Amino acid sequence: MESTLDRLLPTISAPSAPVTEAMRYSIMAGGKRVRPILLMAGSDAVGGNTEKLLPAACALECLHTYSLIHDDLPAMDNDDLRRGIPTCHKVYGEAIAILAGDGLLNYAFELLSSREMREAVDPALLNETISIFGRAAGVFGMIGGQTADILFEGKPIDADTLSFIHRHKTGALLAVSVEMGAVLGGAKPEQRDALSKFGQALGLTFQIIDDILDIVGDEKKIGKPVGSDTRNQKATYPALFGLDAARTKAQDLLNQALEALSDFDHRAEPLRAIARYVVERDR
Amino acid sequence: MESTLDRLLPTISAPSAPVTEAMRYSIMAGGKRVRPILLMAGSDAVGGNTEKLLPAACALECLHTYSLIHDDLPAMDNDDLRRGIPTCHKVYGEAIAILAGDGLLNYAFELLSSREMREAVDPALLNETISIFGRAAGVFGMIGGQTADILFEGKPIDADTLSFIHRHKTGALLAVSVEMGAVLGGAKPEQRDALSKFGQALGLTFQIIDDILDIVGDEKKIGKPVGSDTRNQKATYPALFGLDAARTKAQDLLNQALEALSDFDHRAEPLRAIARYVVERDR
Repeated sequence: MESTLDRLLPTISAPSAPVTEAMRYSIMAGGKRVRPILLMAGSDAVGGNTEKLLPAACALECLHTYSLIHDDLPAMDNDDLRRGIPTCHKVYGEAIAILAGDGLLNYAFELLSSREMREAVDPALLNETISIFGRAAGVFGMIGGQTADILFEGKPIDADTLSFIHRHKTGALLAVSVEMGAVLGGAKPEQRDALSKFGQALGLTFQIIDDILDIVGDEKKIGKPVGSDTRNQKATYPALFGLDAARTKAQDLLNQALEALSDFDHRAEPLRAIARYVVERDR
Repeated sequence: MESTLDRLLPTISAPSAPVTEAMRYSIMAGGKRVRPILLMAGSDAVGGNTEKLLPAACALECLHTYSLIHDDLPAMDNDDLRRGIPTCHKVYGEAIAILAGDGLLNYAFELLSSREMREAVDPALLNETISIFGRAAGVFGMIGGQTADILFEGKPIDADTLSFIHRHKTGALLAVSVEMGAVLGGAKPEQRDALSKFGQALGLTFQIIDDILDIVGDEKKIGKPVGSDTRNQKATYPALFGLDAARTKAQDLLNQALEALSDFDHRAEPLRAIARYVVERDR
Protein backbone atom coordinates (compact mmCIF):
# COMPACT_ATOMS: atom_id res chain seq x y z
CA MET A 1 0.00 0.00 0.00
CA GLU A 2 2.79 2.43 0.94
CA SER A 3 4.76 1.89 -2.25
CA THR A 4 1.61 2.09 -4.38
CA LEU A 5 0.58 5.37 -2.75
CA ASP A 6 4.10 6.67 -3.35
CA ARG A 7 3.91 5.63 -7.01
CA LEU A 8 0.40 6.94 -7.68
CA LEU A 9 0.44 10.27 -5.83
CA PRO A 10 0.98 13.22 -8.17
CA THR A 11 4.23 15.16 -8.19
CA ILE A 12 4.48 18.52 -9.92
CA SER A 13 7.64 20.54 -10.43
CA ALA A 14 5.69 23.57 -11.60
CA PRO A 15 4.78 26.78 -9.72
CA SER A 16 2.09 24.71 -8.01
CA ALA A 17 4.50 22.15 -6.49
CA PRO A 18 3.65 22.97 -2.84
CA VAL A 19 0.10 21.64 -3.16
CA THR A 20 1.30 18.20 -4.23
CA GLU A 21 3.98 18.28 -1.51
CA ALA A 22 1.28 19.00 1.07
CA MET A 23 -0.91 16.18 -0.28
CA ARG A 24 2.01 13.77 -0.08
CA TYR A 25 3.00 15.00 3.39
CA SER A 26 -0.40 14.19 4.86
CA ILE A 27 -0.85 10.86 3.09
CA MET A 28 2.65 9.54 3.70
CA ALA A 29 2.45 10.49 7.40
CA GLY A 30 1.09 6.99 7.87
CA GLY A 31 -2.24 5.75 9.03
CA LYS A 32 -3.67 2.29 9.22
CA ARG A 33 -4.78 2.23 5.54
CA VAL A 34 -7.96 0.52 6.74
CA ARG A 35 -10.12 1.70 3.83
CA PRO A 36 -7.85 0.58 0.96
CA ILE A 37 -7.27 -2.73 2.74
CA LEU A 38 -11.03 -3.18 3.13
CA LEU A 39 -11.52 -2.66 -0.60
CA MET A 40 -8.89 -5.26 -1.40
CA ALA A 41 -10.19 -7.72 1.19
CA GLY A 42 -13.71 -7.19 -0.19
CA SER A 43 -12.49 -8.09 -3.66
CA ASP A 44 -10.56 -11.09 -2.32
CA ALA A 45 -13.70 -12.36 -0.57
CA VAL A 46 -15.47 -12.70 -3.94
CA GLY A 47 -12.42 -13.98 -5.81
CA GLY A 48 -11.74 -10.72 -7.68
CA ASN A 49 -8.55 -9.75 -9.51
CA THR A 50 -7.50 -7.63 -6.55
CA GLU A 51 -4.01 -6.64 -7.71
CA LYS A 52 -5.55 -4.54 -10.50
CA LEU A 53 -7.66 -2.53 -8.07
CA LEU A 54 -4.78 -0.71 -6.39
CA PRO A 55 -5.67 2.73 -7.83
CA ALA A 56 -9.21 2.39 -6.44
CA ALA A 57 -7.78 1.38 -3.06
CA CYS A 58 -5.53 4.45 -3.10
CA ALA A 59 -8.52 6.62 -4.00
CA LEU A 60 -10.07 5.70 -0.64
CA GLU A 61 -6.95 6.75 1.24
CA CYS A 62 -6.85 10.05 -0.71
CA LEU A 63 -10.45 10.73 0.20
CA HIS A 64 -9.93 9.82 3.85
CA THR A 65 -6.83 12.01 4.10
CA TYR A 66 -8.56 15.02 2.51
CA SER A 67 -11.28 14.71 5.15
CA LEU A 68 -8.64 14.72 7.90
CA ILE A 69 -6.86 17.78 6.44
CA HIS A 70 -10.09 19.78 6.22
CA ASP A 71 -11.37 18.54 9.63
CA ASP A 72 -8.13 19.70 11.26
CA LEU A 73 -8.42 23.28 9.90
CA PRO A 74 -8.76 26.13 12.42
CA ALA A 75 -12.35 26.79 11.25
CA MET A 76 -13.22 23.14 11.95
CA ASP A 77 -11.63 21.07 14.78
CA ASN A 78 -8.47 23.21 14.95
CA ASP A 79 -6.09 20.32 15.63
CA ASP A 80 -2.29 20.69 15.68
CA LEU A 81 -1.29 17.02 15.55
CA ARG A 82 -2.35 14.17 13.30
CA ARG A 83 -0.74 10.78 12.81
CA GLY A 84 1.95 11.91 15.28
CA ILE A 85 3.15 14.93 13.27
CA PRO A 86 1.96 18.55 12.80
CA THR A 87 -1.25 18.87 10.80
CA CYS A 88 -1.12 20.00 7.16
CA HIS A 89 -2.08 23.64 7.80
CA LYS A 90 0.52 23.89 10.60
CA VAL A 91 3.24 23.07 8.07
CA TYR A 92 1.93 24.55 4.79
CA GLY A 93 -0.47 27.24 5.99
CA GLU A 94 -4.24 27.30 5.75
CA ALA A 95 -4.56 28.23 2.06
CA ILE A 96 -2.37 25.37 0.83
CA ALA A 97 -4.01 22.96 3.30
CA ILE A 98 -7.47 23.80 1.92
CA LEU A 99 -6.14 23.30 -1.62
CA ALA A 100 -4.32 20.08 -0.68
CA GLY A 101 -7.60 18.72 0.71
CA ASP A 102 -9.43 19.76 -2.44
CA GLY A 103 -6.62 18.21 -4.47
CA LEU A 104 -6.90 14.86 -2.68
CA LEU A 105 -10.69 14.77 -2.91
CA ASN A 106 -10.45 15.48 -6.63
CA TYR A 107 -7.54 13.05 -7.08
CA ALA A 108 -9.61 10.23 -5.60
CA PHE A 109 -11.94 10.53 -8.59
CA GLU A 110 -8.96 10.91 -10.95
CA LEU A 111 -7.59 7.59 -9.68
CA LEU A 112 -10.96 5.85 -9.98
CA SER A 113 -11.33 6.99 -13.60
CA SER A 114 -7.63 6.55 -14.46
CA ARG A 115 -6.45 4.59 -17.49
CA GLU A 116 -5.27 1.77 -15.20
CA MET A 117 -8.78 1.33 -13.80
CA ARG A 118 -10.46 1.79 -17.19
CA GLU A 119 -8.31 -0.99 -18.61
CA ALA A 120 -8.84 -3.31 -15.65
CA VAL A 121 -12.58 -3.12 -15.08
CA ASP A 122 -15.79 -3.33 -17.11
CA PRO A 123 -16.78 0.30 -17.91
CA ALA A 124 -20.34 0.04 -16.60
CA LEU A 125 -19.12 -1.46 -13.30
CA LEU A 126 -16.53 1.28 -13.01
CA ASN A 127 -19.15 4.00 -13.47
CA GLU A 128 -21.32 2.38 -10.82
CA THR A 129 -18.33 2.18 -8.48
CA ILE A 130 -17.63 5.89 -8.97
CA SER A 131 -21.29 6.57 -8.26
CA ILE A 132 -21.50 4.66 -4.95
CA PHE A 133 -18.14 6.10 -3.88
CA GLY A 134 -19.32 9.64 -4.66
CA ARG A 135 -22.54 9.19 -2.72
CA ALA A 136 -20.73 7.78 0.33
CA ALA A 137 -18.23 10.64 0.26
CA GLY A 138 -20.63 13.52 -0.33
CA VAL A 139 -23.44 15.32 1.44
CA PHE A 140 -25.50 12.10 1.62
CA GLY A 141 -22.53 10.45 3.34
CA MET A 142 -19.31 11.67 4.92
CA ILE A 143 -19.71 15.40 4.31
CA GLY A 144 -23.25 15.23 5.71
CA GLY A 145 -21.92 13.50 8.83
CA GLN A 146 -19.14 16.01 9.28
CA THR A 147 -21.64 18.86 8.91
CA ALA A 148 -23.88 17.45 11.64
CA ASP A 149 -20.84 16.77 13.82
CA ILE A 150 -19.74 20.41 13.57
CA LEU A 151 -23.25 21.79 14.07
CA PHE A 152 -23.91 19.74 17.22
CA GLU A 153 -20.58 20.50 18.88
CA GLY A 154 -21.27 21.54 22.48
CA LYS A 155 -25.01 20.94 22.12
CA PRO A 156 -27.15 18.29 23.80
CA ILE A 157 -27.61 15.40 21.41
CA ASP A 158 -29.93 12.39 21.31
CA ALA A 159 -29.16 8.83 20.29
CA ASP A 160 -30.72 9.29 16.83
CA THR A 161 -28.54 12.26 15.96
CA LEU A 162 -25.46 10.50 17.29
CA SER A 163 -26.30 7.50 15.15
CA PHE A 164 -26.78 9.79 12.12
CA ILE A 165 -23.34 11.30 12.68
CA HIS A 166 -21.66 7.92 13.15
CA ARG A 167 -23.28 6.29 10.14
CA HIS A 168 -22.44 9.22 7.89
CA LYS A 169 -19.16 10.67 9.12
CA THR A 170 -17.14 7.44 9.30
CA GLY A 171 -19.54 4.60 8.59
CA ALA A 172 -20.43 5.49 5.01
CA LEU A 173 -16.88 5.51 3.68
CA LEU A 174 -15.82 2.36 5.56
CA ALA A 175 -18.91 0.53 4.34
CA VAL A 176 -18.44 1.65 0.74
CA SER A 177 -14.80 0.54 0.84
CA VAL A 178 -15.93 -3.06 1.26
CA GLU A 179 -18.78 -2.62 -1.23
CA MET A 180 -16.46 -1.15 -3.88
CA GLY A 181 -14.19 -4.17 -3.48
CA ALA A 182 -17.22 -6.40 -3.93
CA VAL A 183 -18.48 -4.58 -7.04
CA LEU A 184 -15.07 -4.27 -8.67
CA GLY A 185 -14.25 -7.87 -7.76
CA GLY A 186 -17.36 -9.06 -9.57
CA ALA A 187 -19.62 -9.98 -6.64
CA LYS A 188 -23.00 -11.65 -7.17
CA PRO A 189 -25.93 -9.56 -5.86
CA GLU A 190 -26.34 -11.60 -2.65
CA GLN A 191 -22.58 -11.41 -1.98
CA ARG A 192 -22.68 -7.68 -2.46
CA ASP A 193 -25.58 -7.34 -0.01
CA ALA A 194 -23.78 -9.42 2.60
CA LEU A 195 -20.53 -7.48 2.23
CA SER A 196 -22.45 -4.23 2.40
CA LYS A 197 -24.01 -5.32 5.72
CA PHE A 198 -20.58 -6.34 6.96
CA GLY A 199 -19.18 -2.93 6.02
CA GLN A 200 -21.96 -1.03 7.76
CA ALA A 201 -21.56 -2.96 11.01
CA LEU A 202 -17.78 -2.60 10.82
CA GLY A 203 -18.03 1.14 10.16
CA LEU A 204 -20.08 1.70 13.28
CA THR A 205 -17.78 -0.52 15.35
CA PHE A 206 -14.81 1.44 14.13
CA GLN A 207 -16.29 4.79 15.16
CA ILE A 208 -17.30 3.57 18.63
CA ILE A 209 -13.83 2.15 19.26
CA ASP A 210 -12.27 5.38 17.99
CA ASP A 211 -14.36 7.33 20.48
CA ILE A 212 -13.40 4.93 23.31
CA LEU A 213 -9.72 5.36 22.42
CA ASP A 214 -10.10 9.13 22.58
CA ILE A 215 -10.93 8.60 26.28
CA VAL A 216 -8.71 5.69 27.35
CA GLY A 217 -6.16 5.47 24.50
CA ASP A 218 -2.40 5.99 24.49
CA GLU A 219 -1.50 9.24 22.71
CA LYS A 220 1.76 7.77 21.36
CA LYS A 221 0.00 4.74 19.91
CA ILE A 222 -2.87 6.55 18.20
CA GLY A 223 -0.78 9.48 16.97
CA LYS A 224 -3.03 12.32 18.09
CA PRO A 225 -3.85 13.95 21.44
CA VAL A 226 -6.46 12.05 23.43
CA GLY A 227 -9.37 13.84 25.08
CA SER A 228 -10.03 16.15 22.12
CA ASP A 229 -13.65 14.95 21.86
CA THR A 230 -14.27 15.89 25.48
CA ARG A 231 -12.53 19.26 25.05
CA ASN A 232 -14.54 20.01 21.89
CA GLN A 233 -17.72 18.73 23.61
CA LYS A 234 -18.23 16.21 20.82
CA ALA A 235 -21.11 13.80 21.13
CA THR A 236 -19.75 10.25 21.23
CA TYR A 237 -21.17 6.86 22.05
CA PRO A 238 -19.21 6.50 25.33
CA ALA A 239 -20.10 10.08 26.32
CA LEU A 240 -23.81 9.35 25.84
CA PHE A 241 -24.02 5.77 27.15
CA GLY A 242 -20.83 5.22 29.17
CA LEU A 243 -17.68 3.20 28.44
CA ASP A 244 -19.12 -0.20 29.38
CA ALA A 245 -22.20 0.12 27.19
CA ALA A 246 -19.98 1.39 24.35
CA ARG A 247 -17.76 -1.69 24.61
CA THR A 248 -20.77 -4.02 24.68
CA LYS A 249 -22.20 -2.28 21.60
CA ALA A 250 -18.89 -2.62 19.76
CA GLN A 251 -18.77 -6.35 20.56
CA ASP A 252 -22.38 -6.81 19.37
CA LEU A 253 -21.58 -5.03 16.12
CA LEU A 254 -18.47 -7.16 15.62
CA ASN A 255 -20.64 -10.26 15.96
CA GLN A 256 -23.12 -8.83 13.42
CA ALA A 257 -20.28 -8.12 11.02
CA LEU A 258 -18.88 -11.65 11.31
CA GLU A 259 -22.39 -13.11 10.98
CA ALA A 260 -22.82 -11.29 7.65
CA LEU A 261 -19.81 -13.24 6.35
CA SER A 262 -21.15 -16.67 7.36
CA ASP A 263 -21.73 -17.82 3.76
CA PHE A 264 -18.19 -16.89 2.68
CA ASP A 265 -15.26 -19.29 2.58
CA HIS A 266 -11.62 -18.82 3.63
CA ARG A 267 -11.19 -16.01 1.11
CA ALA A 268 -13.14 -13.74 3.50
CA GLU A 269 -10.58 -14.45 6.25
CA PRO A 270 -8.81 -11.06 5.74
CA LEU A 271 -12.15 -9.28 6.25
CA ARG A 272 -12.79 -11.25 9.43
CA ALA A 273 -9.28 -10.47 10.68
CA ILE A 274 -9.76 -6.74 10.06
CA ALA A 275 -13.06 -6.76 11.95
CA ARG A 276 -11.41 -8.42 14.96
CA TYR A 277 -8.43 -6.05 14.76
CA VAL A 278 -10.72 -3.02 14.88
CA VAL A 279 -12.24 -4.14 18.17
CA GLU A 280 -8.93 -5.32 19.62
CA ARG A 281 -7.38 -1.87 19.17
CA ASP A 282 -9.16 -1.09 22.44
CA ARG A 283 -7.28 -3.74 24.46
CA MET B 1 -30.05 25.83 -16.81
CA GLU B 2 -31.55 27.50 -13.73
CA SER B 3 -34.44 25.06 -13.43
CA THR B 4 -32.17 22.07 -14.03
CA LEU B 5 -29.77 23.23 -11.33
CA ASP B 6 -32.72 23.68 -9.00
CA ARG B 7 -33.95 20.16 -9.80
CA LEU B 8 -30.58 18.42 -9.55
CA LEU B 9 -29.07 20.11 -6.49
CA PRO B 10 -29.34 17.97 -3.35
CA THR B 11 -31.70 18.87 -0.54
CA ILE B 12 -31.41 17.23 2.86
CA SER B 13 -33.81 17.67 5.77
CA ALA B 14 -31.47 15.86 8.15
CA PRO B 15 -29.13 17.31 10.81
CA SER B 16 -26.81 18.15 7.92
CA ALA B 17 -29.32 20.41 6.10
CA PRO B 18 -27.23 23.61 6.37
CA VAL B 19 -24.51 22.27 4.07
CA THR B 20 -26.97 21.70 1.22
CA GLU B 21 -28.55 25.10 1.91
CA ALA B 22 -25.12 26.71 1.61
CA MET B 23 -24.40 24.85 -1.64
CA ARG B 24 -27.71 25.98 -3.06
CA TYR B 25 -27.21 29.56 -1.84
CA SER B 26 -23.95 29.94 -3.73
CA ILE B 27 -25.07 28.20 -6.91
CA MET B 28 -28.46 29.88 -7.17
CA ALA B 29 -26.88 33.31 -6.60
CA GLY B 30 -26.58 33.47 -10.35
CA GLY B 31 -23.60 33.59 -12.60
CA LYS B 32 -23.29 33.42 -16.34
CA ARG B 33 -23.39 29.57 -16.48
CA VAL B 34 -20.67 29.78 -19.13
CA ARG B 35 -19.23 26.31 -18.45
CA PRO B 36 -22.47 24.31 -18.66
CA ILE B 37 -23.48 26.27 -21.75
CA LEU B 38 -20.09 25.52 -23.33
CA LEU B 39 -20.62 21.80 -22.72
CA MET B 40 -24.03 21.90 -24.35
CA ALA B 41 -22.82 24.04 -27.25
CA GLY B 42 -19.89 21.64 -27.70
CA SER B 43 -22.30 18.73 -27.96
CA ASP B 44 -24.55 20.68 -30.33
CA ALA B 45 -21.58 21.41 -32.58
CA VAL B 46 -21.08 17.67 -33.21
CA GLY B 47 -24.78 16.86 -33.39
CA GLY B 48 -24.97 15.19 -29.96
CA ASN B 49 -28.10 14.38 -27.96
CA THR B 50 -27.53 17.48 -25.84
CA GLU B 51 -30.72 17.39 -23.77
CA LYS B 52 -29.51 14.22 -22.04
CA LEU B 53 -26.28 15.84 -20.93
CA LEU B 54 -27.83 18.29 -18.46
CA PRO B 55 -26.41 16.54 -15.34
CA ALA B 56 -22.90 16.81 -16.81
CA ALA B 57 -23.51 20.48 -17.59
CA CYS B 58 -24.62 21.05 -13.98
CA ALA B 59 -21.52 19.21 -12.75
CA LEU B 60 -19.41 21.97 -14.33
CA GLU B 61 -21.35 24.69 -12.51
CA CYS B 62 -21.01 22.78 -9.21
CA LEU B 63 -17.29 22.54 -9.69
CA HIS B 64 -16.94 26.19 -10.66
CA THR B 65 -19.02 27.32 -7.68
CA TYR B 66 -17.01 25.20 -5.21
CA SER B 67 -13.85 26.88 -6.49
CA LEU B 68 -15.42 30.31 -5.89
CA ILE B 69 -16.54 29.40 -2.34
CA HIS B 70 -13.07 28.15 -1.39
CA ASP B 71 -11.27 31.02 -3.17
CA ASP B 72 -13.36 33.53 -1.23
CA LEU B 73 -12.43 32.07 2.20
CA PRO B 74 -10.50 34.29 4.63
CA ALA B 75 -7.42 32.06 4.28
CA MET B 76 -7.53 32.56 0.50
CA ASP B 77 -8.73 35.79 -1.20
CA ASN B 78 -10.89 36.86 1.77
CA ASP B 79 -13.71 38.30 -0.33
CA ASP B 80 -17.02 39.49 1.15
CA LEU B 81 -19.07 39.76 -2.03
CA ARG B 82 -19.65 37.37 -4.90
CA ARG B 83 -22.27 37.49 -7.64
CA GLY B 84 -23.63 40.61 -5.94
CA ILE B 85 -24.41 39.01 -2.54
CA PRO B 86 -22.39 38.11 0.56
CA THR B 87 -19.97 35.20 0.06
CA CYS B 88 -20.84 31.76 1.42
CA HIS B 89 -18.68 31.98 4.55
CA LYS B 90 -20.11 35.42 5.37
CA VAL B 91 -23.58 33.87 5.57
CA TYR B 92 -22.93 30.32 6.82
CA GLY B 93 -19.58 30.65 8.59
CA GLU B 94 -16.21 29.28 7.55
CA ALA B 95 -16.74 25.65 8.58
CA ILE B 96 -19.96 25.22 6.60
CA ALA B 97 -18.48 27.12 3.65
CA ILE B 98 -15.51 24.74 3.51
CA LEU B 99 -17.91 21.79 3.68
CA ALA B 100 -20.25 23.32 1.08
CA GLY B 101 -17.28 23.69 -1.27
CA ASP B 102 -16.23 20.09 -0.61
CA GLY B 103 -19.85 19.05 -1.11
CA LEU B 104 -20.09 20.77 -4.51
CA LEU B 105 -16.75 19.40 -5.70
CA ASN B 106 -17.87 15.92 -4.70
CA TYR B 107 -21.36 16.44 -6.11
CA ALA B 108 -19.90 17.28 -9.53
CA PHE B 109 -18.60 13.71 -9.73
CA GLU B 110 -21.87 12.37 -8.31
CA LEU B 111 -23.74 14.07 -11.15
CA LEU B 112 -21.31 12.81 -13.79
CA SER B 113 -21.70 9.22 -12.57
CA SER B 114 -25.43 9.53 -11.83
CA ARG B 115 -27.99 7.05 -13.13
CA GLU B 116 -29.23 9.67 -15.62
CA MET B 117 -25.78 9.94 -17.18
CA ARG B 118 -25.12 6.20 -17.01
CA GLU B 119 -28.32 5.56 -18.92
CA ALA B 120 -27.70 8.28 -21.50
CA VAL B 121 -24.09 7.71 -22.51
CA ASP B 122 -21.87 4.81 -23.59
CA PRO B 123 -20.12 3.62 -20.38
CA ALA B 124 -16.57 3.81 -21.75
CA LEU B 125 -17.15 7.38 -23.02
CA LEU B 126 -18.56 8.33 -19.62
CA ASN B 127 -15.47 6.92 -17.87
CA GLU B 128 -13.26 8.94 -20.17
CA THR B 129 -15.32 12.07 -19.60
CA ILE B 130 -14.98 11.73 -15.82
CA SER B 131 -11.26 11.27 -16.30
CA ILE B 132 -10.66 14.39 -18.40
CA PHE B 133 -12.93 16.41 -16.12
CA GLY B 134 -11.01 15.20 -13.05
CA ARG B 135 -7.67 16.10 -14.55
CA ALA B 136 -8.82 19.59 -15.57
CA ALA B 137 -10.25 20.23 -12.11
CA GLY B 138 -7.37 18.84 -10.03
CA VAL B 139 -3.74 19.63 -9.28
CA PHE B 140 -2.81 19.28 -12.96
CA GLY B 141 -5.49 21.84 -13.76
CA MET B 142 -7.56 24.31 -11.77
CA ILE B 143 -6.25 23.50 -8.28
CA GLY B 144 -2.68 23.75 -9.60
CA GLY B 145 -3.48 27.17 -11.07
CA GLN B 146 -5.10 28.40 -7.88
CA THR B 147 -2.07 27.20 -5.88
CA ALA B 148 0.32 29.16 -8.08
CA ASP B 149 -1.98 32.19 -7.98
CA ILE B 150 -1.94 32.19 -4.15
CA LEU B 151 1.81 31.56 -3.93
CA PHE B 152 2.71 34.39 -6.29
CA GLU B 153 0.44 36.99 -4.69
CA GLY B 154 2.46 40.15 -4.13
CA LYS B 155 5.54 38.69 -5.81
CA PRO B 156 7.16 39.70 -9.10
CA ILE B 157 5.99 37.36 -11.83
CA ASP B 158 7.16 36.63 -15.36
CA ALA B 159 5.06 35.98 -18.46
CA ASP B 160 5.58 32.20 -18.24
CA THR B 161 4.25 31.96 -14.70
CA LEU B 162 1.33 34.22 -15.56
CA SER B 163 0.54 32.00 -18.52
CA PHE B 164 0.78 28.93 -16.27
CA ILE B 165 -1.72 30.45 -13.84
CA HIS B 166 -4.11 31.51 -16.61
CA ARG B 167 -4.03 28.19 -18.42
CA HIS B 168 -4.60 26.23 -15.23
CA LYS B 169 -6.75 28.37 -12.95
CA THR B 170 -9.48 29.24 -15.44
CA GLY B 171 -8.39 27.92 -18.81
CA ALA B 172 -8.38 24.20 -17.99
CA LEU B 173 -12.00 24.03 -16.83
CA LEU B 174 -13.36 26.21 -19.64
CA ALA B 175 -11.47 24.14 -22.21
CA VAL B 176 -12.62 20.85 -20.76
CA SER B 177 -16.22 22.07 -20.74
CA VAL B 178 -16.19 22.22 -24.53
CA GLU B 179 -14.20 18.98 -24.80
CA MET B 180 -16.65 17.13 -22.54
CA GLY B 181 -19.50 18.28 -24.73
CA ALA B 182 -17.58 16.99 -27.73
CA VAL B 183 -16.80 13.58 -26.18
CA LEU B 184 -20.29 13.07 -24.75
CA GLY B 185 -21.86 14.28 -27.98
CA GLY B 186 -19.94 11.63 -29.93
CA ALA B 187 -17.31 13.78 -31.68
CA LYS B 188 -14.93 12.26 -34.23
CA PRO B 189 -11.25 12.58 -33.21
CA GLU B 190 -10.53 15.57 -35.49
CA GLN B 191 -13.68 17.34 -34.23
CA ARG B 192 -12.59 16.76 -30.66
CA ASP B 193 -9.13 18.20 -31.38
CA ALA B 194 -10.61 21.28 -33.01
CA LEU B 195 -13.07 21.86 -30.16
CA SER B 196 -10.31 21.36 -27.64
CA LYS B 197 -8.23 24.07 -29.40
CA PHE B 198 -11.28 26.34 -29.42
CA GLY B 199 -11.78 25.76 -25.69
CA GLN B 200 -8.19 26.52 -24.83
CA ALA B 201 -8.17 29.79 -26.77
CA LEU B 202 -11.52 30.76 -25.29
CA GLY B 203 -10.36 29.94 -21.75
CA LEU B 204 -7.40 32.27 -22.05
CA THR B 205 -9.55 35.01 -23.61
CA PHE B 206 -12.00 34.70 -20.77
CA GLN B 207 -9.32 35.13 -18.10
CA ILE B 208 -7.75 38.16 -19.81
CA ILE B 209 -11.15 39.85 -20.18
CA ASP B 210 -11.94 39.03 -16.52
CA ASP B 211 -8.73 40.72 -15.45
CA ILE B 212 -9.49 43.76 -17.66
CA LEU B 213 -12.96 44.02 -16.10
CA ASP B 214 -11.43 43.97 -12.62
CA ILE B 215 -9.73 47.24 -13.62
CA VAL B 216 -12.30 49.02 -15.82
CA GLY B 217 -15.52 47.11 -15.05
CA ASP B 218 -18.78 48.21 -13.47
CA GLU B 219 -19.15 46.71 -9.98
CA LYS B 220 -22.93 46.46 -10.32
CA LYS B 221 -22.69 44.65 -13.64
CA ILE B 222 -20.06 42.08 -12.66
CA GLY B 223 -21.41 41.46 -9.15
CA LYS B 224 -18.18 41.76 -7.20
CA PRO B 225 -15.97 44.65 -6.11
CA VAL B 226 -13.57 45.80 -8.80
CA GLY B 227 -9.92 46.43 -8.09
CA SER B 228 -9.51 43.32 -5.90
CA ASP B 229 -6.66 42.01 -8.08
CA THR B 230 -4.75 45.25 -7.62
CA ARG B 231 -5.43 45.26 -3.86
CA ASN B 232 -4.31 41.63 -3.53
CA GLN B 233 -1.32 42.35 -5.81
CA LYS B 234 -2.43 39.63 -8.19
CA ALA B 235 -0.49 39.09 -11.36
CA THR B 236 -2.75 39.72 -14.34
CA TYR B 237 -2.25 40.16 -18.05
CA PRO B 238 -3.15 43.87 -18.04
CA ALA B 239 -0.97 44.45 -14.98
CA LEU B 240 2.03 42.88 -16.74
CA PHE B 241 1.53 44.17 -20.30
CA GLY B 242 -0.94 47.07 -20.00
CA LEU B 243 -4.61 47.39 -20.95
CA ASP B 244 -4.06 47.93 -24.68
CA ALA B 245 -1.83 44.90 -25.11
CA ALA B 246 -4.30 42.85 -23.07
CA ARG B 247 -7.17 43.85 -25.37
CA THR B 248 -5.13 43.06 -28.48
CA LYS B 249 -4.22 39.67 -27.02
CA ALA B 250 -7.87 38.92 -26.25
CA GLN B 251 -8.86 39.81 -29.82
CA ASP B 252 -6.08 37.59 -31.25
CA LEU B 253 -7.25 34.70 -29.10
CA LEU B 254 -10.85 35.23 -30.18
CA ASN B 255 -9.72 34.96 -33.79
CA GLN B 256 -7.81 31.76 -33.00
CA ALA B 257 -10.89 30.33 -31.30
CA LEU B 258 -13.12 31.12 -34.27
CA GLU B 259 -10.49 29.77 -36.68
CA ALA B 260 -10.55 26.43 -34.84
CA LEU B 261 -14.25 26.16 -35.73
CA SER B 262 -13.78 26.79 -39.45
CA ASP B 263 -14.67 23.22 -40.47
CA PHE B 264 -17.90 23.24 -38.46
CA ASP B 265 -21.32 24.09 -39.87
CA HIS B 266 -24.16 26.19 -38.42
CA ARG B 267 -24.46 23.86 -35.42
CA ALA B 268 -21.30 25.48 -34.03
CA GLU B 269 -23.00 28.90 -34.12
CA PRO B 270 -23.72 28.88 -30.33
CA LEU B 271 -20.02 28.29 -29.65
CA ARG B 272 -19.09 31.18 -31.95
CA ALA B 273 -21.64 33.42 -30.25
CA ILE B 274 -20.26 32.59 -26.78
CA ALA B 275 -16.73 33.38 -27.90
CA ARG B 276 -17.83 36.78 -29.21
CA TYR B 277 -19.85 37.45 -26.07
CA VAL B 278 -16.84 36.78 -23.87
CA VAL B 279 -14.81 39.48 -25.60
CA GLU B 280 -17.74 41.89 -25.84
CA ARG B 281 -18.24 41.85 -22.07
CA ASP B 282 -15.42 44.40 -22.06
CA ARG B 283 -17.32 46.96 -24.15
